[in-house]
Amino acid sequence: MALVGVIGGGQLGRMLGLAGIPLGLQFRFLDPSPDAPAASVGELVIGRYDDDRLLRRLADGADVVTYEFENVPAAAAASVGAVPGARALELTQDRLVEKRLFRRLGIPTAEFELPALPALAKARRLGYDGKGQRVIQSLEQLGDDELAEELVDFRRELSLLAVRSTSGETRFYPVVENVHRDGILRVSRTPAEHAPEEEAQEYATRLLDELGYAGVLALELFESRDGSLLANEVAPRVHNTGHWTIEGARTSQFENHLRAILGLPLGSTDSQPATMVNLIGSVPPLERLLAIPGAHVHLYDKQPRPGRKLGHVTLVGDAVARSEELEAFV
Amino acid sequence: MALVGVIGGGQLGRMLGLAGIPLGLQFRFLDPSPDAPAASVGELVIGRYDDDRLLRRLADGADVVTYEFENVPAAAAASVGAVPGARALELTQDRLVEKRLFRRLGIPTAEFELPALPALAKARRLGYDGKGQRVIQSLEQLGDDELAEELVDFRRELSLLAVRSTSGETRFYPVVENVHRDGILRVSRTPAEHAPEEEAQEYATRLLDELGYAGVLALELFESRDGSLLANEVAPRVHNTGHWTIEGARTSQFENHLRAILGLPLGSTDSQPATMVNLIGSVPPLERLLAIPGAHVHLYDKQPRPGRKLGHVTLVGDAVARSEELEAFV
Repeated sequence: MALVGVIGGGQLGRMLGLAGIPLGLQFRFLDPSPDAPAASVGELVIGRYDDDRLLRRLADGADVVTYEFENVPAAAAASVGAVPGARALELTQDRLVEKRLFRRLGIPTAEFELPALPALAKARRLGYDGKGQRVIQSLEQLGDDELAEELVDFRRELSLLAVRSTSGETRFYPVVENVHRDGILRVSRTPAEHAPEEEAQEYATRLLDELGYAGVLALELFESRDGSLLANEVAPRVHNTGHWTIEGARTSQFENHLRAILGLPLGSTDSQPATMVNLIGSVPPLERLLAIPGAHVHLYDKQPRPGRKLGHVTLVGDAVARSEELEAFV
Repeated sequence: MALVGVIGGGQLGRMLGLAGIPLGLQFRFLDPSPDAPAASVGELVIGRYDDDRLLRRLADGADVVTYEFENVPAAAAASVGAVPGARALELTQDRLVEKRLFRRLGIPTAEFELPALPALAKARRLGYDGKGQRVIQSLEQLGDDELAEELVDFRRELSLLAVRSTSGETRFYPVVENVHRDGILRVSRTPAEHAPEEEAQEYATRLLDELGYAGVLALELFESRDGSLLANEVAPRVHNTGHWTIEGARTSQFENHLRAILGLPLGSTDSQPATMVNLIGSVPPLERLLAIPGAHVHLYDKQPRPGRKLGHVTLVGDAVARSEELEAFV
């Protein structure tokens, strides 16, 4: 019976626990909130991510420590030998460092060194869900902790989830098409029509190789109107755009992340069509959600707050035909 | 956020918790063992099933109380208003009462009042997994707490899982074919070829009606060589022969049991072919189980002991073709 320590106890931790308990794994989470969603599926250590004493407690007796949140201090992850490694955090927490990594690996990105104006100013660190982004007319408006990026006129947003185990075995889920609203992921659909699977997999492979990676890695991409791909961000963790894998893939991203970091054989990523819709800011009554035929409801036990992700609903196979009904409803 | 109290904290409780946490439910279990498998997914109250004080603690603040074990004292279930009701326990805990119930409802069973000899003697109460059964040559060999049953020369064993919600909505899963070894369920396969779906559903409906039932109910049947059905047992709970529904049905028996007892809309029971194999007495190394393509592994965190159910593995869809490989292996 292996014990998995997880830095972070949000919904991603909760879903890691739900995937791992059937494998006989036990979980311990470190999170500042006593109401952390993952508390339902393991022991919760309450405190800061960088508290050395609590990190030691998290790692005590654990067979592996991982994280479910990319803004964990890299030194904290390093101190407990987290998988994926601290290097993956260092290279992805700062958007400028991340963009330079893409460039170094020959992965196209939006221009960011000397972008045309107006440009998009983004916080280099701790930005998520579109927070900390604004359009600037002059580079003088750029703050020290910001990065300026070319405004990309993209056709659609895509993401690719890759998983590599400590043994080197690698698998990919099909490319996902994502729709954001107010900078927050609203809907993910798979398979994305005419998706550039091979190109996306090639870029992800370069990242996995460079980072000496184990676990699930998510690569967010823009597809421009001429069909070319631009890397936007990489997340060294399970990812919202992969939640559909719980019911839509033979093996979920959560189970495969655990298999990967424990050096177990990876599971099949064979998938059926799926649509996932996030529940943002409020949750419709459960009885109404469950009345949608084929709806798989996932609630995170979080207090409602505008713009907060409180749950998601997934439709797979034939039920995907009901996506519009679901999207209109939530 | 509803709280569900469960009398019993075994693997069935654990799988109820895993199915209910995504719906935002929280769980509390009453079980005599501090190592109860369900402890991973909820609060564990440790003690006897009939301890009034602990039953009150179990039910305190719970939106509904259910049980995952049919040998709960009916009075204990009644004291907390359990769903399904105590009546379902009373009528199914004693094999003689149960057989008379079948007869009263016009559901065929093996002869049990004056069976031909030799006959099968079965403990009236607390028998499970073939325990407490022996062949007798004379009715004088029958103990006071035993029932004598005709020896049935059956072709196969089948089971049907039905679910009815407190609102009366009813659904059935496809009939399952079951293979026992040494009296313990070894393999369940669905769909059972040429299964008498309608006849089985008719019998289950009579039971649901008679018991004023809500929740999942499992009906075990013998199919004799002439194709007729004989009811063997009914279990007022989620059931080992329905574990394949976790991956093989649109909605698992565990989720549908929770929906049913909470009065929520039932989920679709549409199913794909599935095979479930129990892990009995010992568990092969996890890495070997996970190396079987498409294997869904469920371990219960129980100490190994001969004849004990320690987990199960399910194959669905195309992967069912690997059933023999799996059965040979475990």
